[in-house]
Amino acid sequence: MSVLGYAAYETGGTLSSIEIERRPLRPDDVRIRIRFCGVCYSDVHHIDNHFNNTVFPLVPGHEIVGEVEAVGEGVDTFKPGQFVAVGCMVDSCGTCQPCTSDEENFCERGPTMTYNGKDRIDGSNTLGGYSQTIVVSERFVVRVPAELDPASVAPLLCAGITTYSPLRRTNVGPGTKLGIVGVGGLGSMAIKFGVALGAEVTVFTTSPGKADAARALGASEVIVSTDRAQMKTVRGRLDLILDTASQAHDLNPYLNTLTRGGQLVVVGALDPIVPPVHAFILASGRRSVSGTFIGGVAETQEMLDFCAEKAIASDIELIPVSELNDALDQLRANTTHKRFVIDMSTL
Amino acid sequence: MSVLGYAAYETGGTLSSIEIERRPLRPDDVRIRIRFCGVCYSDVHHIDNHFNNTVFPLVPGHEIVGEVEAVGEGVDTFKPGQFVAVGCMVDSCGTCQPCTSDEENFCERGPTMTYNGKDRIDGSNTLGGYSQTIVVSERFVVRVPAELDPASVAPLLCAGITTYSPLRRTNVGPGTKLGIVGVGGLGSMAIKFGVALGAEVTVFTTSPGKADAARALGASEVIVSTDRAQMKTVRGRLDLILDTASQAHDLNPYLNTLTRGGQLVVVGALDPIVPPVHAFILASGRRSVSGTFIGGVAETQEMLDFCAEKAIASDIELIPVSELNDALDQLRANTTHKRFVIDMSTL
Repeated sequence: MSVLGYAAYETGGTLSSIEIERRPLRPDDVRIRIRFCGVCYSDVHHIDNHFNNTVFPLVPGHEIVGEVEAVGEGVDTFKPGQFVAVGCMVDSCGTCQPCTSDEENFCERGPTMTYNGKDRIDGSNTLGGYSQTIVVSERFVVRVPAELDPASVAPLLCAGITTYSPLRRTNVGPGTKLGIVGVGGLGSMAIKFGVALGAEVTVFTTSPGKADAARALGASEVIVSTDRAQMKTVRGRLDLILDTASQAHDLNPYLNTLTRGGQLVVVGALDPIVPPVHAFILASGRRSVSGTFIGGVAETQEMLDFCAEKAIASDIELIPVSELNDALDQLRANTTHKRFVIDMSTL
Repeated sequence: MSVLGYAAYETGGTLSSIEIERRPLRPDDVRIRIRFCGVCYSDVHHIDNHFNNTVFPLVPGHEIVGEVEAVGEGVDTFKPGQFVAVGCMVDSCGTCQPCTSDEENFCERGPTMTYNGKDRIDGSNTLGGYSQTIVVSERFVVRVPAELDPASVAPLLCAGITTYSPLRRTNVGPGTKLGIVGVGGLGSMAIKFGVALGAEVTVFTTSPGKADAARALGASEVIVSTDRAQMKTVRGRLDLILDTASQAHDLNPYLNTLTRGGQLVVVGALDPIVPPVHAFILASGRRSVSGTFIGGVAETQEMLDFCAEKAIASDIELIPVSELNDALDQLRANTTHKRFVIDMSTL
């Protein structure tokens, strides 16, 4: 079927409307009428072709919330009318060790990404949620709890799971001294999750203007990371740092704020780490730098259920599709900690 | 008292004999007649002033084995005639959290190093084990089990504990797929410990000539790390890598050999990590890079006891002090996996 989408036609190009095809339902497929789609920094990465692998025209969008419109003959877990969501992946091999242990995000053959990916069956280029409709295998669809506002759920599918997963895997809880680098889309969610899990949250930002926002989200301390004196006050104190900054930057000053055995987890800039990490700073405190990448489908469902239980939502700014190009520019300029969500009824 | 030592007088200088003073016994001190002292790459680092902090004349040596000659009035755990050892540290604050949890190596105020350190009481520059005698607080002296050959014990005090500590802390055991980068002094010990703990050991080396040595030490597989095809065969397979190479190098090819959640621990080159680690390689497998730095005193004793139980010793080449400068040059040239130990009776 033919539906409307919104696409970039060239590197860094302005997005405009496009007519795209959605496949007929396979037996395990769910067709979703998209109501809301979040705008993620990853979308900028792909529009601007930062990874040199963008296939144009590109239809971005991997924070998708909508209503089930129809299901394939083999689907009985989802019913038309139900609110559901789709995140960064739409398929994986399903048989490797990560896939069979609910970590499809680490599929050894590579998960199929929601956009700019290659469909495992027909080989077509996947097209994302900046569109009216999407067709996805039920294995990659999650339920949206009724307690949650569907528009505010959208960013949870990427920014939410990306930050929730490492906090849970490192057992963040009461007593944890948690640092969050950055107060953007990922950082805001990380602060909320950290607070909800009972941690004491210290926020690092290069933008003093974001301090109030960070405190409002529950941070007990805000450090302007460019201020050496402020950085010194947290030296050796934190158990875990989640680094959500979207640009590569010097990790060494943050590593020095970790206690013995402390961990810094990079979830923002998945680039070469320059300036280089100093191995002496790692060794002198048994510290580590690690990275992680979204989360599995079951963990995504767990995260949404946790949000419902703790009344956590993303702070969003709902925009019509006509404001999308402006919103992308604001992300490029790093001037907002809000998450833009497109009201897809405006398409 | 005045004793003979062997010192470097300038950056990169040839070592020659020197007369040095050892302090009168403090109540908690042990005076040790040094029988053997290992030659460590750290000694080269300091002689060549790689860290720009060497105080000359420098008396290196932190792999010290000898006999107790006399003890301070407060010492009753050590008796004259007993074989004992001293490693990289001779003091620490004793009161911080790491010190009170048997990790003096991570003393928050900095441990006092065995040489090129500053004595916490009299402020003098510490002088190491390339000498006839040393005076050390009993808190930093360990017992040498009678089962072990004292000369072969020397390298265990640095190369041994540096590799034993991270293997124990990461619970290496039967079923662990362990990678060891480098077959030098540290690497050889790491292979032996890995095998003794029951792991399956894969060794990476840039020197194909070291493959037989690695196999003789118990490695089940040897990969020439400059050979891309060989590296590909271990992709995604290892649980833990201990990187013992003494020069900074590209960690990314090794990170790719780690399984999901795998860890690479740097214990060799404590320098800025260049070329930079790629955060995407970390994130795409929840991998981490960490570092560690020797071990605590109690852990050092545990390591020596483990060596006695498992009949592990270092492969050493006993040299007279007259061959010391040559030995240092061989370490600089990376042409040996043996550990030189000075027979101090030749001084």
